[in-house]
Amino acid sequence: MTLRALGRLQAAEVVVHDRLIGDDVIDRIPASALRLCVGKALGDHAVPQEGIHDLLVFHARAGRRVVRLKGGDPYVFGRGGEEVQALQAAGIAFEVVPGVTAASGCSAAAGIPLTQHLADVEASHDWRALARPGQTRVFYMGVQRLPHIARQLITHGLSSNTPAAIVRDGTRPAQTVLVCPLGRLVDIAPAYGPQPGLIIIGETAQLSPHFQAS
Amino acid sequence: MTLRALGRLQAAEVVVHDRLIGDDVIDRIPASALRLCVGKALGDHAVPQEGIHDLLVFHARAGRRVVRLKGGDPYVFGRGGEEVQALQAAGIAFEVVPGVTAASGCSAAAGIPLTQHLADVEASHDWRALARPGQTRVFYMGVQRLPHIARQLITHGLSSNTPAAIVRDGTRPAQTVLVCPLGRLVDIAPAYGPQPGLIIIGETAQLSPHFQAS
Repeated sequence: MTLRALGRLQAAEVVVHDRLIGDDVIDRIPASALRLCVGKALGDHAVPQEGIHDLLVFHARAGRRVVRLKGGDPYVFGRGGEEVQALQAAGIAFEVVPGVTAASGCSAAAGIPLTQHLADVEASHDWRALARPGQTRVFYMGVQRLPHIARQLITHGLSSNTPAAIVRDGTRPAQTVLVCPLGRLVDIAPAYGPQPGLIIIGETAQLSPHFQAS
Repeated sequence: MTLRALGRLQAAEVVVHDRLIGDDVIDRIPASALRLCVGKALGDHAVPQEGIHDLLVFHARAGRRVVRLKGGDPYVFGRGGEEVQALQAAGIAFEVVPGVTAASGCSAAAGIPLTQHLADVEASHDWRALARPGQTRVFYMGVQRLPHIARQLITHGLSSNTPAAIVRDGTRPAQTVLVCPLGRLVDIAPAYGPQPGLIIIGETAQLSPHFQAS
């Protein structure tokens, strides 16, 4: 659990949490907070996704500080995207606090690196697979190679209108986010500088409040 | 930054850190600790990777509590795997503390979900691409579908001897790790139960101290 998440949890008036949250985390919820478990046991459906949206909106509209507590990272198989869309539709302000996704937690537990240094990363890229629709692609340390990445994806069939982002200093006070169609991102990226950043390419980038369609 | 990472940092006698660590984190290093920056500026090579290994081994052998502080997650483009191998070769005990990888931090900053709910996840899998060598594959919530996943990968050319893991309750006291060749994992998984877990498949799984070759 991150320090930021702990801070938000300790300030919560309502906590809506999943079933798989550890007791060490549950124990940090303030005694004064309303605690609502919406998690599913295996094969069981506790609260349907729309019911969770309704709960979040209901308590937020009542003026309460609501924490939606999830294990792992909310944007990696956490359905955080759907919950955020429900809050946006209801006009409710929110913040997404990133977490340690299961791939990181479990690879550390097992002692299995997810990446190992490659002399030639390029050779390991299957551009045809990466260009297929219906996925979100993340490139680490790719800003200087953005023109090449975009050219490969577009050559292999990805639309140049696909939403794409460069994110720098994510989660820090200095963070900057640039989100627009991929073709345009390639054009304006040089003016944005060579500093390290993360590239995200996929339809989900259109959900970003920073998205500029043109 | 996680609570676990903060605890280790506050107990450190030597901290070996990268250049891109935020001041808010650097400020939490104890004043009594030796602080060594080994980070690279853009285009510059401060301390070569082998030099970092030597530093870690040197201070650990001198009996000091050493923290190797990295931004993001050490096993995702963090070269943590190489540093761990150097420690193993030197016979030095260590712990890997997982972190918030840049994909999670930056997607939260940008408001871009990395996954969005799909009615048919299966259709979005490019098994041919996933079966290609030289990559580590992570499947969330895949334990009950392990026979299907393994069959698809092997049909598309992956060796059934590829190291593979099921990790449950990663980072928690109850964590369990099962690592062995993929073909064997499929055989013994049913006895391991249907509880949720993360599946990791790839050559890097062989680096796990839990790996059982047969």
